[in-house]
Amino acid sequence: MDDKRPLDVIDPDSEWECTVEAPVNIALVKYWGKKDEKLILPYNDSISLTLDETVLGTRTTVSYSATYEEDCLVLNGEEQKISSRLENVIEEIRRAFRKHAVRNKMNAQNLMIMTRFRFRIVTENKMPTAAGLASSASGMACITFALCTALGIAESVDMSRLARLGSGSACRSIYGGLVQWEAGKEEDGSDSVAKQIYPAHAWPELRVLVLVVNGEKKKIGSTKGMQMSIETSDFMISRPKQCKDRIQEVCWAFQAKHFPALGEVIMKDSNTLHAICRDTLPPVNYLNETSEVLIEFVHDLNSIIGEVSVAYTFDAGPNCFLVFQEKHEHLLKWILSQTFLDSNGLLNTDKPKFDNDENLYADLIKQYQSKNYKVIKDFYCTEVGSGPKVVKNPTII
Amino acid sequence: MDDKRPLDVIDPDSEWECTVEAPVNIALVKYWGKKDEKLILPYNDSISLTLDETVLGTRTTVSYSATYEEDCLVLNGEEQKISSRLENVIEEIRRAFRKHAVRNKMNAQNLMIMTRFRFRIVTENKMPTAAGLASSASGMACITFALCTALGIAESVDMSRLARLGSGSACRSIYGGLVQWEAGKEEDGSDSVAKQIYPAHAWPELRVLVLVVNGEKKKIGSTKGMQMSIETSDFMISRPKQCKDRIQEVCWAFQAKHFPALGEVIMKDSNTLHAICRDTLPPVNYLNETSEVLIEFVHDLNSIIGEVSVAYTFDAGPNCFLVFQEKHEHLLKWILSQTFLDSNGLLNTDKPKFDNDENLYADLIKQYQSKNYKVIKDFYCTEVGSGPKVVKNPTII
Repeated sequence: MDDKRPLDVIDPDSEWECTVEAPVNIALVKYWGKKDEKLILPYNDSISLTLDETVLGTRTTVSYSATYEEDCLVLNGEEQKISSRLENVIEEIRRAFRKHAVRNKMNAQNLMIMTRFRFRIVTENKMPTAAGLASSASGMACITFALCTALGIAESVDMSRLARLGSGSACRSIYGGLVQWEAGKEEDGSDSVAKQIYPAHAWPELRVLVLVVNGEKKKIGSTKGMQMSIETSDFMISRPKQCKDRIQEVCWAFQAKHFPALGEVIMKDSNTLHAICRDTLPPVNYLNETSEVLIEFVHDLNSIIGEVSVAYTFDAGPNCFLVFQEKHEHLLKWILSQTFLDSNGLLNTDKPKFDNDENLYADLIKQYQSKNYKVIKDFYCTEVGSGPKVVKNPTII
Repeated sequence: MDDKRPLDVIDPDSEWECTVEAPVNIALVKYWGKKDEKLILPYNDSISLTLDETVLGTRTTVSYSATYEEDCLVLNGEEQKISSRLENVIEEIRRAFRKHAVRNKMNAQNLMIMTRFRFRIVTENKMPTAAGLASSASGMACITFALCTALGIAESVDMSRLARLGSGSACRSIYGGLVQWEAGKEEDGSDSVAKQIYPAHAWPELRVLVLVVNGEKKKIGSTKGMQMSIETSDFMISRPKQCKDRIQEVCWAFQAKHFPALGEVIMKDSNTLHAICRDTLPPVNYLNETSEVLIEFVHDLNSIIGEVSVAYTFDAGPNCFLVFQEKHEHLLKWILSQTFLDSNGLLNTDKPKFDNDENLYADLIKQYQSKNYKVIKDFYCTEVGSGPKVVKNPTII
């Protein structure tokens, strides 16, 4: 399959397989709104942390052959109809492959066979899909990466642009570390791609704890919600400039490894996203009471610590993503295990050492215990990840 | 006490009394933020409906005499310390009185006696203070009106400016009907006053139903909340212009008696206020789950009716103010009595006649009944009012 070996002729009846994994990403400055619905061109720039794909990610195995009759998709064990967006991604990948093959003077026989490849895409999320943990981003990134790997073009095409066509924020899951997605200026979307700003190892002490807040399935999906915001919220007008400014702050905080600055921008932008949703008509509310209490809890905890040491961020759903540094991990886990985590929660840690007055933390715990918020059953503790990985290179089966 | 009778000399030992009432007002385009904390100069223009003071208002009786030693305040039956803001209002009223007396060449002896008047202010809200139904606005307007009536200057001073010094939105409760409060441009606040745009009888079919949503006392009062918004929310920058535009829309809708246009602005501006609160750091949330469900319910109901026929608006608290026209009163009350009103609710109405398919309403009722939202015990059904009233003119007691 390697295009550097054009003399190998592929057996037209052969079946192949490859497996890849791609991570979830969590936006620190959020994508909300499209300026082009078909090309999925965002209304504003965004920036995200790519998480460790072994904890929060998707695994996709593609088997493919010129003998298969049509493309098909199996998502979490169930055969699904291929959506028009995914169809679009697959077609764009085939087109990119043909361009690449011609440019690289691929053996004509192989080109003909490979053009006839049809794909059986088997994709599994590592976390419950229902939990709403950005599975569409990791899912589309993973399928894109898998197909490009299958066709041997993963290194030579802009996979970020291709993944974007499937699900906007998927374009950010193509890279590891801190990743920026620029809205771009071109009408065809060619400059609306993600790029890595800092690799994962730039700030290895960063941690992300995802608290799965159970709730009803959201009544208004993010695609519909962001469209309504564009149509009805005045606040969208100033949003592109605000995002540019906040992304600069995130980059500066990263460069200086200044957590309080990073944490403040993260919380502000999460609040702004949900403020825009509330300013939409009819208003959209993705948070629930538990989310609200977690927000309050984080501000209370930071007050005790004396500076912003934990930051929350919420996508279009009630789940809480907590960002912090390793040095606060033990303390945070211990407090959460006493307050929000259900007794079945496995986050049992010993009492940590305290930098300041232990009684302040005891009071905080008592305050939240008394409200009976022990409702969180699932959580994922992870780190910044380095992006998609090939698990199994293309192999004849 | 009438300044047109300067020859009457007041007995220096006499005691007097007068009683007035002032209404609650509900902002349609909301006041949020001060550009001057001391003078209570608002960050943006606002516009409100004055409600009927016999239903939602405050009654104040002032007894006064030159023989009293000091001013005192009894609020809802309990003696209270006079706040620095109220003290400021009383001093300004005394100053206004002296100016007025000199300008009108008041008999020197009377002037001396009246300057020595001290006030026993007994003030009672008609609705529970704890319910948070804008009692500070009607309360301060009522005290201002009572003191000005006592000193015979109610007709000749700008009571709106005086009431504003006690509680910003109180300046709007000085007038009936549709009332606009301009932020003004003068540094001394002299042009930051309310004025009537339309009298109460301009749109007599308007109704306001207040649903008292029980909840914890708000953790962050509006004075603190608005200050935090000014300091932390980017959205405040575009707010003054937005308010001017929306006030124009309200005035246009009033002039045309076009309810769908009025209702849409009302809901949008309520949502914007609470969006700004969510965009504040730390975020402030004045709504609770019941408020959220009521918002959804109103949009669902309007969808069935086919146009905006009921509008919700929320001040800095969870209580829901519903604005609608008389023609929808029966229908609305009937649906609410089946869904949100607690069984002790007294709003029992017979089944209304329906303009369109009755089944749609039956489905709506079933949908909300199944969620067990019958939590609203108190409500007030009222109309637009014509402003403060003198109940008992100054009389020697």
